[in-house]
Amino acid sequence: MKSDLDALMHARNLDALIIFGNAEHNPPMYYMTGGGHVSHATLIKKRGAEAILFHNDMERDEAAKSGLKLISYSKYGVEDLYKKAQGDAVLASALRMELALKDAGVTAGRVGIYGTYDLSAVFGTLTHLQKILPTVELVGEAREDSLFLRVMETKDEAEVNRIRQMGRITTSVVAQVREYLTACDVRSDEVLLKEDGTPLTVGDVHAKIRLWVAEQGAELPSGFIFAIGRDAGVPHSAGNPTDLMRLGQTIVFDIYPAEAGGGYYYDFTRTWSLGYATPEAQALYDQVKEIFDRLNENFDLNAPFKNYNQMTCEYFESKGHATPMNTKAPVEGYVHSLGHGVGLNIHERPFSGLTAGDDQRLAPGVVITSEPGLYYPEKGMGFRIEDTLWVRPDGKIETLAEYPYDFVLPMKRWKK
Amino acid sequence: MKSDLDALMHARNLDALIIFGNAEHNPPMYYMTGGGHVSHATLIKKRGAEAILFHNDMERDEAAKSGLKLISYSKYGVEDLYKKAQGDAVLASALRMELALKDAGVTAGRVGIYGTYDLSAVFGTLTHLQKILPTVELVGEAREDSLFLRVMETKDEAEVNRIRQMGRITTSVVAQVREYLTACDVRSDEVLLKEDGTPLTVGDVHAKIRLWVAEQGAELPSGFIFAIGRDAGVPHSAGNPTDLMRLGQTIVFDIYPAEAGGGYYYDFTRTWSLGYATPEAQALYDQVKEIFDRLNENFDLNAPFKNYNQMTCEYFESKGHATPMNTKAPVEGYVHSLGHGVGLNIHERPFSGLTAGDDQRLAPGVVITSEPGLYYPEKGMGFRIEDTLWVRPDGKIETLAEYPYDFVLPMKRWKK
Repeated sequence: MKSDLDALMHARNLDALIIFGNAEHNPPMYYMTGGGHVSHATLIKKRGAEAILFHNDMERDEAAKSGLKLISYSKYGVEDLYKKAQGDAVLASALRMELALKDAGVTAGRVGIYGTYDLSAVFGTLTHLQKILPTVELVGEAREDSLFLRVMETKDEAEVNRIRQMGRITTSVVAQVREYLTACDVRSDEVLLKEDGTPLTVGDVHAKIRLWVAEQGAELPSGFIFAIGRDAGVPHSAGNPTDLMRLGQTIVFDIYPAEAGGGYYYDFTRTWSLGYATPEAQALYDQVKEIFDRLNENFDLNAPFKNYNQMTCEYFESKGHATPMNTKAPVEGYVHSLGHGVGLNIHERPFSGLTAGDDQRLAPGVVITSEPGLYYPEKGMGFRIEDTLWVRPDGKIETLAEYPYDFVLPMKRWKK
Repeated sequence: MKSDLDALMHARNLDALIIFGNAEHNPPMYYMTGGGHVSHATLIKKRGAEAILFHNDMERDEAAKSGLKLISYSKYGVEDLYKKAQGDAVLASALRMELALKDAGVTAGRVGIYGTYDLSAVFGTLTHLQKILPTVELVGEAREDSLFLRVMETKDEAEVNRIRQMGRITTSVVAQVREYLTACDVRSDEVLLKEDGTPLTVGDVHAKIRLWVAEQGAELPSGFIFAIGRDAGVPHSAGNPTDLMRLGQTIVFDIYPAEAGGGYYYDFTRTWSLGYATPEAQALYDQVKEIFDRLNENFDLNAPFKNYNQMTCEYFESKGHATPMNTKAPVEGYVHSLGHGVGLNIHERPFSGLTAGDDQRLAPGVVITSEPGLYYPEKGMGFRIEDTLWVRPDGKIETLAEYPYDFVLPMKRWKK
């Protein structure tokens, strides 16, 4: 939680931090500023001191909404800096950064670098800054263990409420999609038809999903998944837009909308088969559902998250599937890890990979996904069930948005 | 254009380049891969050689759509790398990068760093890489002059057609908004009313705009501007959602949708006053329109873009307004530069600031905005007119999407 920031900086021996970039779609900056239309900004926080947001004059109103202490870049006289840097824009930017650090009281020590931004510009600036300010040590961290993923790992109730609200939006859109698909007419070759009598494609469904999420005022990363058949068997295939929607094939629908402006996410997956399912698909679905339920019964406060990934591997291995436990980078069977934290990043701490540290736990306040799956692209099928769960301070595990787990969706105008 | 990449690398003495990050919302990676759901990828291109895309196994299908040579990260055995790095994830990542560079034939020379991605992870990786591979010099560049902004500065016809298509979408949404606003009922205090009889707010209009852009399958960065009154006078204020929509106040509507997945943008602004305009607002609008037209008459093939910004400053100064020509970072008058390139970045080369280089020209193939404006927040008004223009190979300047320049929009159910 944000209140842990100074303590976590201390634990990592960081004397200060710099965040680069825009307030939106940039989790560390969003976390500190609350989002909004502030672009090309810089935030500097000395440990134990208040954060300062450096911004362009034109964005002073938007910057003010952050409630942070503000300094406009214009204070540093861009033309003077260029002159001093003899026209070298990267050096000028480093000189400005030196002045900004000074204004934030940072002249020495270890300084962590954060944010999502133009790598070329920042790398150039920091390379120069390191030379002109050798008393400062600039530090980068591993993506999965960065200071901000650590700070953001546990959520306060206001954050959880925002995630829960995204869960409501997510499941209402999923319900709309289900309603739409099951109301379709079906051609004799089991292809679904649109209102105009032409075949319904995966691309048509993608467009509906985008529209219905937008109607709720949320954002949908374009990599969301609505895939059928073989593509459902490739975990991160978004689905082939020209594929026709058909009965009796597995559909993986993995949707993760976020608050507009790059805020909190929800992450959710269901697997469907329209009209009927093949016996093989039904049997595999039942296995995924069985371990999904067993996990829900076994999640324990403060247990390492990876234990449940291990449990999932053992279950699937016992059913004869390949898993990362015994196969390196499998492409069939259970091919990913069980889940991940969800917040301002769609994937954040805690992680559940078999090599994840024991400190990635079901600690009070974490919000995680549980998403076991099975993938058989060569058989033309794939399965995943995913909910987003909150580990409550009282130790209970709460599914943040309830939604049914039906696999076979009966068609309203079609019978076998 | 992309065909210039090797020559531009040569001109900058770059032996290779590395792009980090996702294929979407990451212009250099999108440019090289064509977009798609490829995340946490790395692209390495040695000068004169074909680019290689390094990707996660799970995303092999999406990566294959790029048509590039592919290598899966799994080739490098993440566990071995961790062992070799004694568990230091950042060092392991640097070791992997060293192997990837070797596979791309890069063992020495100057290597440019590009992309939009997690700064902490990349900075950490590159700091280690620079130590273990001292024969390579890693290079960052100024944002406004990076290799990719240079390569992308001129567009081929396929790119222009995509931008033009976004222009069609943009102007059709603007027409919808105009239609909606002018059909509203008006209360006796000149506040617009919604269908349900309650006041129409700026936030309501924002929601409509988002929805209508989504209906067209495009993306809308959340910082788009629809602002009224004082907020219209602050160039980058997105508009205050709780402000009521009223007659006779200036509305700045600056909208820049992009193709879904972080593709090509269009950039467009109109200023409106509903029902009537105050004489002061009309006079200021007329000045903005006059210089806008004069610019269109004067744009010349290959002229430095900043000349037109200078022309705009001179015009506005002659009318008694502050401009950057004589005032440092003005907050009233003409407070920004004339325009910028548009492509996979909403702001890209050529730029038009008064200090921009003479090499930022109206060269054949550039796509630019022309957007003079006047801002008087204390008077509660602001004005900007903006079109996106293509400098065609034949030297003609083409407005990529035509739309009327009416300032006062007559209300259908209201008369003064």
